[in-house]
Amino acid sequence: MNQPSVPQTFRAIDVIRKKRDGIELSQTEIEGLVNAYTSGAIPDYQVSAWLMAVVLKGMTRPETAALTDAMLHSGDVLDLSSLPAQKVDKHSTGGVGDKTSLVLAPLAAAAGVAVPMISGRGLGHTGGTLDKLESIPGFNVNLPVAQFRRVLKACGCAMIGQTAEIAPADRKLYALRDVTGTVESPYLICASIMSKKLAEGIDALVLDVKTGSGAFMKSEKDAVFLAELMVETGERMGKQVIALITDMDQPLGNMIGNALEVVEVTEVLRGRGPEDLRELCLELAGWMLHLGKVSKTVAEGKQQSAKLISSGKALETFRQMIELQGGDARVIDDAKRLPQTHQTMMVMGHNAGYVGSIQCEQVGTACVILGGGRERKEDSVDPAVGIVLHKKVGDPVAAKEPIATIYYNAEAKATRARQLIEASYVIADMPPTKRPLIHRIIGKAGEKN
Amino acid sequence: MNQPSVPQTFRAIDVIRKKRDGIELSQTEIEGLVNAYTSGAIPDYQVSAWLMAVVLKGMTRPETAALTDAMLHSGDVLDLSSLPAQKVDKHSTGGVGDKTSLVLAPLAAAAGVAVPMISGRGLGHTGGTLDKLESIPGFNVNLPVAQFRRVLKACGCAMIGQTAEIAPADRKLYALRDVTGTVESPYLICASIMSKKLAEGIDALVLDVKTGSGAFMKSEKDAVFLAELMVETGERMGKQVIALITDMDQPLGNMIGNALEVVEVTEVLRGRGPEDLRELCLELAGWMLHLGKVSKTVAEGKQQSAKLISSGKALETFRQMIELQGGDARVIDDAKRLPQTHQTMMVMGHNAGYVGSIQCEQVGTACVILGGGRERKEDSVDPAVGIVLHKKVGDPVAAKEPIATIYYNAEAKATRARQLIEASYVIADMPPTKRPLIHRIIGKAGEKN
Repeated sequence: MNQPSVPQTFRAIDVIRKKRDGIELSQTEIEGLVNAYTSGAIPDYQVSAWLMAVVLKGMTRPETAALTDAMLHSGDVLDLSSLPAQKVDKHSTGGVGDKTSLVLAPLAAAAGVAVPMISGRGLGHTGGTLDKLESIPGFNVNLPVAQFRRVLKACGCAMIGQTAEIAPADRKLYALRDVTGTVESPYLICASIMSKKLAEGIDALVLDVKTGSGAFMKSEKDAVFLAELMVETGERMGKQVIALITDMDQPLGNMIGNALEVVEVTEVLRGRGPEDLRELCLELAGWMLHLGKVSKTVAEGKQQSAKLISSGKALETFRQMIELQGGDARVIDDAKRLPQTHQTMMVMGHNAGYVGSIQCEQVGTACVILGGGRERKEDSVDPAVGIVLHKKVGDPVAAKEPIATIYYNAEAKATRARQLIEASYVIADMPPTKRPLIHRIIGKAGEKN
Repeated sequence: MNQPSVPQTFRAIDVIRKKRDGIELSQTEIEGLVNAYTSGAIPDYQVSAWLMAVVLKGMTRPETAALTDAMLHSGDVLDLSSLPAQKVDKHSTGGVGDKTSLVLAPLAAAAGVAVPMISGRGLGHTGGTLDKLESIPGFNVNLPVAQFRRVLKACGCAMIGQTAEIAPADRKLYALRDVTGTVESPYLICASIMSKKLAEGIDALVLDVKTGSGAFMKSEKDAVFLAELMVETGERMGKQVIALITDMDQPLGNMIGNALEVVEVTEVLRGRGPEDLRELCLELAGWMLHLGKVSKTVAEGKQQSAKLISSGKALETFRQMIELQGGDARVIDDAKRLPQTHQTMMVMGHNAGYVGSIQCEQVGTACVILGGGRERKEDSVDPAVGIVLHKKVGDPVAAKEPIATIYYNAEAKATRARQLIEASYVIADMPPTKRPLIHRIIGKAGEKN
């Protein structure tokens, strides 16, 4: 592990005091702190005080870049230079029903871009890529790096969880932030995301920064701030980074829940599936292909992606990746091979009209309550449970018409989930003004397109 | 130990988040946090994050009182109701050459006030009462509570260090604050001081809040803020509290260093000694006697104190206390029985004129360098070393006239101390405007006087 020694003169208390007093820290000071913490030379209680000072005092752009860099170099950086293809990844800040990663990795790989994707688990009310993949029987998200490389080389994409070698500082810092009320800082979020993504040895990164009632950044202002921070941090490190501010004011697609979302992914890879999900996947794929230099423009990248879907090549790559990672690829053609719940329950609309809005975080929480996410980190996830929405924002609803179906294994949980879903739907007399799917595009690469 | 159990519903993370977001905490939440921390139910790293949030977000008056109360009740509160006298203590926020406690305890006791004084050690550039007392051979500052009571009953005063039973939450919190950059908060300082002082079972408290270049609160504004906070917190708890904002822009008296300060204390108790020290002692004693109900007014209390000095009764009480706490009381008449240094070194003024100012913290630091204070908590203190000032602010100085004498045991340290002392003296053409010794008096009790 690349771990520079801590200089003799480094004193954590000085760095804490400076940040507390709003004085900019030098790269040496930030590096010293991260290295000392990762090696165990300074205790949790000093770092948590420093983290709280960062939450309340913020960081400058050079500080944010220095923190990202120190966390990135706390562990291994994958060297994928032996692969001739451009290496491009995509990261989402998390939402409800956001299964785009499972579509995008095989889709971009089918186009000739290498996608070395290291993902996370569900957090709070949002789902996680690893949990979704693990609903496929046998699928192994814990590949050693050598095997990760082999899968990537064989089919153009590979999807795993964070390893002990990748950004160990982030693992340690994230665990500490989680229990000390220091998660909610754009600077710390940026350093956490970017250090892990840059450790993948990528050339370019497409960021999907969510905004709306189901996102961590509820306001567009906060989403834009975080997006700019991440783009600038990546660009400072010589990477091509683009951020799309996308809508998460209602769930993405119709299916929420791990196995259910795999079903919806195969739908999209067959050219079917809900319009919003399909459109967002094509948009993000367009960017990945463009930054990955297989298409001249984003529009061309979108067209190419659409063709790779209609030709079946993208689905074929998904099938290959599942097999190479030990999973049962027959789930693609036979959804019954995915985990199934014992029972289903209908959710009815309380009155007739149009769906005016869906409180998206509540729908995510309903899925967590069913067992599809974790209330505590150590909880296990029930891959089969979830929610299928029959009505999205703007859709007309008749009185007593079903708006959703709950897939459950425990009735008491389903009852609580139903109440939440019912309460999350606002039925209006008129359809609402449609929110755009893509709110904004941030990054130098976006200026040309 | 009075330790309420932690309610099942208490979650440290919620309390951290609330404080981070600037929401007022309830008494139950603050009590929950303090009790959980004292009992070991929540870890250092959560509390240090909370402390940093307090430093940066502040506390309301009810929060400050709740924190003080929770810390106070984390341990034993002395019950001194069997003593008929009023129990009055005095606390100083710390300075250079501040030896008033050693004068005041026997002086107020001689007047019939009971003084149960629990003091601290030197901190940073400031001296500590316990270190000064321990320069008297045999003097024991670690009396068990029962013996503390006996000394108090026998001579009217007793001076010890914090025990394990008194405000254990403060011991634990203070140690954590010291290493996490969370010392400098008036709210935390207030709760720390007031919880310990109120645990002494006192009826009234005289606070000496220092301001100037040798104080922790350099500006009068900060000193007044802290004083108001402490007075209000004490008054909320039904105690009579008065705070004097006093000058610490130059060292108090002429002697700095543990044994040297004991010598100066005996001088004052003999009616001699430097004017500023004598005047401040009489002023503080006047307040102690007044709040202790042995004098109708502060002015009367000062007169009574002056008489107890000229009659020798105050010195006699000091002698008694030293003997009762195991010390060699002969030091009072024979200063050579106190620890002595091997050598002395003169510090000369660089030019003729008047002492315009003395950078007081630097003089304190010079004494620490000599070994009279601690650079790290685990360091031991050399009781013999110190500085005697021959010139104070406003005094005329001839060219090459000695301004101070250094008492030392290690020449290299003395040389560094001399440089600091030289640099701390500013010689001006004209004497400066005199700063008042007492800047302000804060507290309801002060309105009547």
